[in-house]
Amino acid sequence: MKETILNKVFLHGADYNPEQWFDRPDILERDIEMMKEANCNVMSVGIFSWSVHEPEEGKFELDWLEKVLDKLYENGIYAVLATPSGARPRWMAQKYPEVLRVNENLDRNLMGDRHNHCYTSPIYREKTAIINRMLAERFAEHPGVILWHLSNEYCGICYCPLCQEAFRNWIKKKYETLDNLNSKWWTAFWSHTYTDWSQVESPIRRGEGSINALKIDWDRFCSDQTIDFMQHEIDSVKSVNPNIPVTTNLMYHYGGIDGFKLGRKLDIVSWDAYPEWHMGDDVKQAINFAFYHDLMRSILNKPFLLMESTPSTTNWKKFSKMKKLGFHVLSSMLAVAHGSNSVQYFQWRQSRGCSEKFHSAVVSHYGGNDDRVFQDVCEMGKILKVVPEITQTATRADVCLIYDWENRWGLDHSNGPRNFDKGYIKAINEHYSALRKLAVMVDVTDMEGDISSYKMVVAPMLYMYRAGFAGRIRAFVENGGTFVGTYWSGIVNEFDLTYLGGMPGELTDVFGLRSTEIDALGDEQRNAVIPVSKSAFCESEYPCFRYCDVPKVSTADVLLTYKGDYYAGEAALTVNKYGKGKAFYMATAFDAKLLTEIYGTLVRDLKIEQAAVDLPHGVLACLRENDKYKYVFYQNFNDAPAEVVLPQNAEVMLGGAKMPAYGVTIVKRVLPN
Amino acid sequence: MKETILNKVFLHGADYNPEQWFDRPDILERDIEMMKEANCNVMSVGIFSWSVHEPEEGKFELDWLEKVLDKLYENGIYAVLATPSGARPRWMAQKYPEVLRVNENLDRNLMGDRHNHCYTSPIYREKTAIINRMLAERFAEHPGVILWHLSNEYCGICYCPLCQEAFRNWIKKKYETLDNLNSKWWTAFWSHTYTDWSQVESPIRRGEGSINALKIDWDRFCSDQTIDFMQHEIDSVKSVNPNIPVTTNLMYHYGGIDGFKLGRKLDIVSWDAYPEWHMGDDVKQAINFAFYHDLMRSILNKPFLLMESTPSTTNWKKFSKMKKLGFHVLSSMLAVAHGSNSVQYFQWRQSRGCSEKFHSAVVSHYGGNDDRVFQDVCEMGKILKVVPEITQTATRADVCLIYDWENRWGLDHSNGPRNFDKGYIKAINEHYSALRKLAVMVDVTDMEGDISSYKMVVAPMLYMYRAGFAGRIRAFVENGGTFVGTYWSGIVNEFDLTYLGGMPGELTDVFGLRSTEIDALGDEQRNAVIPVSKSAFCESEYPCFRYCDVPKVSTADVLLTYKGDYYAGEAALTVNKYGKGKAFYMATAFDAKLLTEIYGTLVRDLKIEQAAVDLPHGVLACLRENDKYKYVFYQNFNDAPAEVVLPQNAEVMLGGAKMPAYGVTIVKRVLPN
Amino acid sequence: MKETILNKVFLHGADYNPEQWFDRPDILERDIEMMKEANCNVMSVGIFSWSVHEPEEGKFELDWLEKVLDKLYENGIYAVLATPSGARPRWMAQKYPEVLRVNENLDRNLMGDRHNHCYTSPIYREKTAIINRMLAERFAEHPGVILWHLSNEYCGICYCPLCQEAFRNWIKKKYETLDNLNSKWWTAFWSHTYTDWSQVESPIRRGEGSINALKIDWDRFCSDQTIDFMQHEIDSVKSVNPNIPVTTNLMYHYGGIDGFKLGRKLDIVSWDAYPEWHMGDDVKQAINFAFYHDLMRSILNKPFLLMESTPSTTNWKKFSKMKKLGFHVLSSMLAVAHGSNSVQYFQWRQSRGCSEKFHSAVVSHYGGNDDRVFQDVCEMGKILKVVPEITQTATRADVCLIYDWENRWGLDHSNGPRNFDKGYIKAINEHYSALRKLAVMVDVTDMEGDISSYKMVVAPMLYMYRAGFAGRIRAFVENGGTFVGTYWSGIVNEFDLTYLGGMPGELTDVFGLRSTEIDALGDEQRNAVIPVSKSAFCESEYPCFRYCDVPKVSTADVLLTYKGDYYAGEAALTVNKYGKGKAFYMATAFDAKLLTEIYGTLVRDLKIEQAAVDLPHGVLACLRENDKYKYVFYQNFNDAPAEVVLPQNAEVMLGGAKMPAYGVTIVKRVLPN
Repeated sequence: MKETILNKVFLHGADYNPEQWFDRPDILERDIEMMKEANCNVMSVGIFSWSVHEPEEGKFELDWLEKVLDKLYENGIYAVLATPSGARPRWMAQKYPEVLRVNENLDRNLMGDRHNHCYTSPIYREKTAIINRMLAERFAEHPGVILWHLSNEYCGICYCPLCQEAFRNWIKKKYETLDNLNSKWWTAFWSHTYTDWSQVESPIRRGEGSINALKIDWDRFCSDQTIDFMQHEIDSVKSVNPNIPVTTNLMYHYGGIDGFKLGRKLDIVSWDAYPEWHMGDDVKQAINFAFYHDLMRSILNKPFLLMESTPSTTNWKKFSKMKKLGFHVLSSMLAVAHGSNSVQYFQWRQSRGCSEKFHSAVVSHYGGNDDRVFQDVCEMGKILKVVPEITQTATRADVCLIYDWENRWGLDHSNGPRNFDKGYIKAINEHYSALRKLAVMVDVTDMEGDISSYKMVVAPMLYMYRAGFAGRIRAFVENGGTFVGTYWSGIVNEFDLTYLGGMPGELTDVFGLRSTEIDALGDEQRNAVIPVSKSAFCESEYPCFRYCDVPKVSTADVLLTYKGDYYAGEAALTVNKYGKGKAFYMATAFDAKLLTEIYGTLVRDLKIEQAAVDLPHGVLACLRENDKYKYVFYQNFNDAPAEVVLPQNAEVMLGGAKMPAYGVTIVKRVLPN
Repeated sequence: MKETILNKVFLHGADYNPEQWFDRPDILERDIEMMKEANCNVMSVGIFSWSVHEPEEGKFELDWLEKVLDKLYENGIYAVLATPSGARPRWMAQKYPEVLRVNENLDRNLMGDRHNHCYTSPIYREKTAIINRMLAERFAEHPGVILWHLSNEYCGICYCPLCQEAFRNWIKKKYETLDNLNSKWWTAFWSHTYTDWSQVESPIRRGEGSINALKIDWDRFCSDQTIDFMQHEIDSVKSVNPNIPVTTNLMYHYGGIDGFKLGRKLDIVSWDAYPEWHMGDDVKQAINFAFYHDLMRSILNKPFLLMESTPSTTNWKKFSKMKKLGFHVLSSMLAVAHGSNSVQYFQWRQSRGCSEKFHSAVVSHYGGNDDRVFQDVCEMGKILKVVPEITQTATRADVCLIYDWENRWGLDHSNGPRNFDKGYIKAINEHYSALRKLAVMVDVTDMEGDISSYKMVVAPMLYMYRAGFAGRIRAFVENGGTFVGTYWSGIVNEFDLTYLGGMPGELTDVFGLRSTEIDALGDEQRNAVIPVSKSAFCESEYPCFRYCDVPKVSTADVLLTYKGDYYAGEAALTVNKYGKGKAFYMATAFDAKLLTEIYGTLVRDLKIEQAAVDLPHGVLACLRENDKYKYVFYQNFNDAPAEVVLPQNAEVMLGGAKMPAYGVTIVKRVLPN
Repeated sequence: MKETILNKVFLHGADYNPEQWFDRPDILERDIEMMKEANCNVMSVGIFSWSVHEPEEGKFELDWLEKVLDKLYENGIYAVLATPSGARPRWMAQKYPEVLRVNENLDRNLMGDRHNHCYTSPIYREKTAIINRMLAERFAEHPGVILWHLSNEYCGICYCPLCQEAFRNWIKKKYETLDNLNSKWWTAFWSHTYTDWSQVESPIRRGEGSINALKIDWDRFCSDQTIDFMQHEIDSVKSVNPNIPVTTNLMYHYGGIDGFKLGRKLDIVSWDAYPEWHMGDDVKQAINFAFYHDLMRSILNKPFLLMESTPSTTNWKKFSKMKKLGFHVLSSMLAVAHGSNSVQYFQWRQSRGCSEKFHSAVVSHYGGNDDRVFQDVCEMGKILKVVPEITQTATRADVCLIYDWENRWGLDHSNGPRNFDKGYIKAINEHYSALRKLAVMVDVTDMEGDISSYKMVVAPMLYMYRAGFAGRIRAFVENGGTFVGTYWSGIVNEFDLTYLGGMPGELTDVFGLRSTEIDALGDEQRNAVIPVSKSAFCESEYPCFRYCDVPKVSTADVLLTYKGDYYAGEAALTVNKYGKGKAFYMATAFDAKLLTEIYGTLVRDLKIEQAAVDLPHGVLACLRENDKYKYVFYQNFNDAPAEVVLPQNAEVMLGGAKMPAYGVTIVKRVLPN
C-alpha cells in the first residue's frame, strides 16, 4: 500500500463537490483557505460526479479533478477518491433503460434520485468499469489520493428480468436439484412445489409471499449481488493499481446488505453516522451509536473511519435539531473512542439547490467563518491534531455480541409470535446497553465470526442458527466460555426450517433445558420475575416484557422465576454448567436495570475488563490501547457537569476529572510490561 | 346420505397434511398413535394438496391419499376430504396465467400464496372439475370419508378481463335495459350515463368510484361468482356420488361473500373461529364469538361444525398469546354451547417451513405428548366423548337479529354521515351482547330469512331495505311481533336509491315517526338520553353516541328523549303500536347498560326464554334442546371462581354450581311432556 | 356587461340539477314553488350536465335547459350557467381515452368520478369549445342568465404523454438553454445534468425526486395548464358573446392551482366554503374561514360570491355534524361580512343516488318544507332581502398579509428543517387570527400584489422570495411602511436556489440582522421568550415553538430574547428602522396571546382601523363600506349570549347590542363627508 497519512494521524474532512461551483472560482479559492482554517487534512471528492467525468457517452473530462486534487494536495489536504457509481448520468439512463431499477410492482423506474441502477445490468457494470479504470489510471499514483471511496452508501434492490435471471441462477447453484429446493423450502405447504427452475421468481406483494425461506434467500441474493457489484468495482480499480486501499461508506440501520459479508471485502471499513440528538434521551442515543461504532470496528477488527457525520443537523429527519454547545466534539469523539481514526463530514459546503441543500455543512450558505458550526469544526480539528498517536491503537474486548443480518432477515419474514415490533434490534440494544454502561468493551460479530477468544458471548434473540454455529457455541462453552442466550433462539436452521425435537435447536443440553411454549405479550402487558432464594442477580421483583418463554428445565439451575400468569414459578433465568463453561438462558426480556445487575455480576465473576468503574449516570467510558498505553475516553452525555475518578498515574490528554456538561476527557495509562 | 358418525358423536380432530412428511415415515406412524391418544375421531385431509395429487398436468397420484385414509380408518379416525382448489399447483399458474388473479390496479398477480385464482377462468373451473371428480370417483365410497370440505376459506376477488365480461353479463341480466341501469344507478349525477353495455367496468380506485350502486353490485357479483364457483365444485363431486354431504369453512369477519347465500348451498355449515383471548376483555370477546357461532348455526338452522380453531395461538395476529390454563376447553365449548357438533383444529402437526409454521398445532415441532397444549387437546376430546347425545339437539330462539351482507356493503360504500367507523358491526354486537348477557338464545338471519315465528326481531342500522323486507316487517308487527329498529335505517332501497317522502322508508307508519335529521357525533362526543316521566327503561340519564337521529313523532309514544344539544327534548326511544304488535325505534346508540335494561324489560314483557337468570358477570349461559331434554351450558369467562344457581332436578353432566375460573358446567333438564 | 341583478341585490340560491328528475315532473314543479318560498333568486344550472347536453357525440339536446331557464326566469329566478367540462360523458372517455388522466404511477385512469380529464388533450379542448359555444350561442342572451360558471372546482393533474410534452415545452420556453436549466436546477448535484430537452419528465415517485426546483416548476406548470384550459373555456364563451361575466368556483384549501393567478383571469371570484363546525373550537374555525373569505375578496379586490356552502352538513368529512340552531345564518353571514355578495348552496335538492346523496340540500329526500334546514334557508333569504344596499360596498384594509402559492410549493418540496407539519398554513393562520381578533380588516395577496398602499404588510414564513419581491419590500419600508417578517424567510429565490451571503436574502439590511442557524423543535418541545427591559410587547415570559431561528443582529433593536437552550439571550423579536419605516423580525413562532399583544401594539401605534374595540371573546367584527356608510358586522360565535358596544348614532339593521348565542348584528354608520 501507498505510504500516506492513513492511520498515522486522524483524518478530518468532508465530502467536497467543487463541480457544483465551477462558475464561482472565488468560492473554490475560499474553500481551500477555509479548509486549512478548519484543520482539515482530507476531502472526499468525486462522489456522484459521473456527469462531470463523462458528460457524453465516451467523452471523458477529468482535468477538473486533477486540478482539484493538485490544489488540495498543495495545501496539505489529502483526497479520498470516489468511484462515481452512486448515480448514473442522465444520458445513460435515457440510452440504456436497463440500467434503471424495476420496482417491487415490476414497473421500471424513471431516471431520478441516486441509487437507482441495477447491480446486475451488464451495461451498468461495463460503464462502471470503464470510468473506474479511467480514474485509477489517472489518479492512483497522485500523491494526494489515499483511499478509494467505492460508490456511496450501496443500497436498494431491483426486480428487473436480469435480476430475476441472476436470482434463478443463484438459487440453482445453491440448491442444485428441485427436490432439494422443494424440501428445504417446504413447498408441499399450500401446493407450492417447484417443477421447473424457471418458476423461481423474487417474492413480491402480488406474487409469492408465503415461503419465508424464499424471502430470506432473496435478501441474501440482493445482498450478495450488491457485494458482487462492489467487488466488480474493487477489481476495476485494483486491476489498474492495487496500492490504494478501498472502503465504502456503510449505513448502520440498513437492512438490505449483510454488513459483515460486505465489510470483509474492504481494506478499511467506514460508515455514516447520523444520531438524532436532543429529541429524547441523549444517553440512550449515544449508546445506540456506540453499538454501531463497535460493530463497524469489529468487522475487520481494526480502526474504522467515520466517513460521514453532520457538522450540525441533517435535513431528512422529522426535525432538524441543532447540536447544543459542545455536542459536536462530544458526538464526534464517540466515534473516536470506539475506534474511529477519523471525523469526516457530509458535507464541506452546502449546495444551493436540490434535496440536500439544507443538510448542514462545514461551510453554510452564508459562507463566513464566524458561524458557530464552522467554529465547532475548527475546534474538532484542533483536538484531533493533539492526539494522533491514538490512531495506532486497537480495541481489545472480552465480550462479543452476536448480531447477524441473516437472523434479522429470518425474523423479519417470520410470522409470529409477534408480528409488529418483533424486537431484535431492541434486544441487541438492551444487552449492549447494559454492557456499555458497565464500561465493558464489546466486539460485535455475526454467526461466522471467530468467538473462541472471548470470555463471554452474548447472543440475544438468535432465532436462526446458521450452519455450524451451534457447534461453535458448544465448543466455546465446553472450553470454558460463558454463553448468554435468550428466548426465541435456535428456532430454525439456515433454511428457516424449524428444529424438531426441542429448542433451542442442537443446544438443549448446553442450556440444560427445552423451550415448551412462548407467550407474546402485548405492548403494554408486563409480567415479573423474582429470584429463587438468594439469587445473585436480583433481590426483589423486576418487570419482564415482550416475550415469555416457558422452559422445561433438565440440568440447568433456575435463578429467576416468573411471578405471574399461568406459568408463575417457571424458570425465567437459568444457568447450566457445560464442560468448563456456562450457558445462561434468559427466557424473557428483562429491563435495563435487571440486565445491568446480571451483567454486572458476570463481569465481576469473569473478571471482564472495564474501562472505568462507578461511573456517574450518563458518563460513558471506553478504551483504545496499544502495546504501551491504554487510552481511556470519558464522555459526559449529561446536560450538567459530572465528576469521574481518573486512574492514578494517568496522563490527562484532554479535559479532566471534573467534566462540564457534554465534556470529553482522555487519559493515557502506561501498561505494565 | 352415507351412514357415518356425523351428528351421532362430536367430531374432534384437525387439519392433517401428511404430504409434508413423506420423507418421515416415523412421524407418520407417530401421528396415528398420538391421534388416538388425543381422542381424535376425524381428520381433514387433502386441503391444499393439489401439487401432490397432480404433480404434472394430467398426471394424477392418489395412492398416497388412499393409504392415509385407510390408515386413519383402521384406527377409528374418519376423514373430511377436501377438494384441493384452495391453491393451484405452480405448473398450472405457469402454463395458464389466466388462472391467476388480476388485482385492483389491473396488474396480473404472479404465482403465490393460496387464494390467488380467478373464479371465472374456464380453465381453472375445468381443472377443478377434473381433480374433484377424480377424488370423488376414488374415495366417495371409502368408509372413512364422511364429508366434503370444499376448497378452503373461499375469498378474494379478481379484476381480470374474464371477470369484467362476466360482470357485464351479470349486470345486463339484472337491469335488462340501459335506461333501467341509468335510472337505478342515478347516472345523471356527474354525467355518468351509460350508453353502451361495454362501458360497464368494475369500480376501481383509478376508475369509477362515485356510483355507490355499482360498487354494491360489484360486491354482489363477486360474492355470486364465488358461490357459483363453489356450486361448480359441489356439482363436480355430487355428480359422481351424491351421498357425501358438503361443507366449506367460512370466515366470520369476511365481508366479501354473502355468508347466508353461500351457506344455504351447503349440507352443513362449518367455520373457522379464531378469537383473540387475553388481549382485552375476554367476556366481550366471548360474546363476539358467540354471535358468530349463532350466525353460523342460523344459516341452515341446525348444528354446525367448528372446522378450525387453534389449540393454542394463531401466528398471524399482532401478538400470539398463549391460552391460560383451562381456556382451551372453555373456548372450544363456546362453540358447542351455541350449536357446534365438533371441535376441530388447524392443525394436527406444525409444518417445519413457510408462513404458518408458528401457528400452534396439536403436535408441536417438539413432537412430544408431554406438552400442555397436547394435554389440553386430550382433555377436550375426553369431555366430548362424555356428551355425544348433545349432537342430536337443536337450538330454539324467540329472538331474531337481522345481519345482512348487502346492508353492510351499502353502508361501506355510502358517504356520510360518518365516514370512518360507521359502526354497523359494532351496532350488531351491542344489541347481540345485551341479549346474550340476558342468556337469551338468538337466531341471526338476513333480510331474506323467515322471521314470522319469532317473538322479537331486532334490526340495528338497517340502512338498506332490500325488496320485500319492509313488507315482511309490516306483516310481522301486524301479526303481533315486536320489532326493534334504529337510527340510519330504511334510508335506501336495494339499488341504493334513497327513499323519498320520509324515512325509515315504507315503515314510517309502523314506527309512528319520521326521521328528520341525523347528527354524526365525533368519536369522543356524547349526548345523553333521559326518561319521559316514569319510563320502564331507565331511571336516570344514560350517555348516547355515534349517531343522533332526530325523529318527528306522529303516533309513537316517546319513552326517552335527548338531554342536550339543539334537539334536547326530542325523541330518542319510541314505541308504536301497530296491528297486534309493536315497533320500537332507537334514534341513537345506547350504551351496554341501557341496552341491557331495555332488552331486559322486553324479555320480561314478551316472556322470551332465558337459559338462566341472575347470572354473575362474565358467566354466559346457553341452551341446546331436543324433544326430551334441555341442555344448559354455563361458561365462566372470569379469571376467578363464580357460582351459578343450577335448575332444580337437573342432571349435572359436567362441572357444577361452583365454577372455577374458566370453568364450564353442563346440566340436563327433562322437558315436561 | 349585461344588466342583471348582479351586485344589486344579494344572490341567494343553489346548484340545481333538474336533469336528475326528468321522470318526475311533479318534483320539478314543486322545485319552483319551494325556491320562491325559500327566497331564492338564483340557481346554478348545467354543472356536470354534459351527458344530457350531448347524449351521443355530436348530437346536442339543449331544449330541456331552455325550458328550465325559462321556467326559472318566469318565476323571478336568475341563472348562473355552467359549462359542463367538470365531467365528461362516458361515450367520450370510451371513444377517446386520451381525455382521461394518467396517474402518478403512469397508469391511464378509467372513466369515473368527475375531474378526470386531461387539460392538455386537444380532443378534450375541442369538445369543450364546441359545447361551450353551443351554450353561449343559445343562452347568452337569455334574460335570466347572469353569469358563466366555468366548469366546477378545477383541480387535479395528469401525467400523460401529452402533458409531458407540454411540460417540456413550458420548461424549454422558460429556461431557453440547457446550461441555464442545469444551473438553475443545480443539477450537478447527484449527476442529474440534463443533456437533452427530451430528458425532462414530470417528477414522480419512481422517477426524479431530488430536484426541488423541478417539482416546483411542475406545480407551476400544472397550475398554468389548468388556467390555460380555463382561459380556453373563457375564450369559447366570450368569443360568442362577451356580455356575460365569468366566474369559477375555487376551493380554499386546494394547493394545486395558484389562486391569485387563476382568479385574476375572472370577472368575479367565487368559491366553495365548507367549514367544519362543532367539532372543536368554532371561533377558531370561523377565523380560519374569515381568512379564506378575505383571500377570495382580495384577488380582485372587490365583492366575491359564496358559490357553494352547505345548508346543513357535507357528507364527505369524517363526521357530518348538523349545524346548531342559528348557525346557518351565522355561518353564511361570515362570508357576507367579509365581502360576499351571495349566499349560495350546494345543492338545491338531494340526489337519490351516488356519492353525494347524503350531502345536505335545501330540499331533502323527504321533500317537505317543514324541515329545520329548509326553514333556515328561508330565513337566510329573508335577511339578505333586507340589506341589498350592502352589495354596493367595498372592504378597505390597512393591513396586507402575504400568502403565496409558489412559496407554499417551495416549502412543500423542501427538505428540512422540519419535514412534517412545516407549518406554513398554520403560521398564516396564527398571524391572521391575531389581526382578526383585533377586528382589523386584512387584505391577502401574493408576492405579485401591489402592497404600496398599506400601513402594514405581514409575511409569515416567506421561504421563497420571488423575483422583485425583496425590492418591493425594501421600497415599502423605505417609504414608511411597517413590514413584519418571520423565521425561515428569504431562504431561496424563485428557482429554489438558496441565497448566499446571508438570509433573509436581499433584506438583511432592511431587517438589520442575519439568520445564523435555525433549530427545529419537536412537536411537543417548547422554548420561551422574555422581554428586553420594559418591552412594549410583553411583560413576562411566553412560550415559543416549531422553529427557533438564531439571528445575529446588526442594526436592529432587540425586543424579545430566548430564555432557554444554548441560544438563550439571543434575539427572538427585533425591529429595525429603515428609511421612513420599520421592519420587524419574529425569529420564532409565538403563541396566540403574544401575537395579539404584539399586533395590538402595532395597530395602536400605526393607527390601523379596527371595526370595533374591546370585543368579548368569540365575537368577531367586520366592516364593509361605500362613500357614505360603514356597515359593521358583529358575529357571536359563542354558544352563549354576548354584549357588544355599538357605535353611537349608528343605525341597527339587524340584531342589537345584546347578542344571543350565535347571533348576528349589523349596524350602519354614516361617514363624515
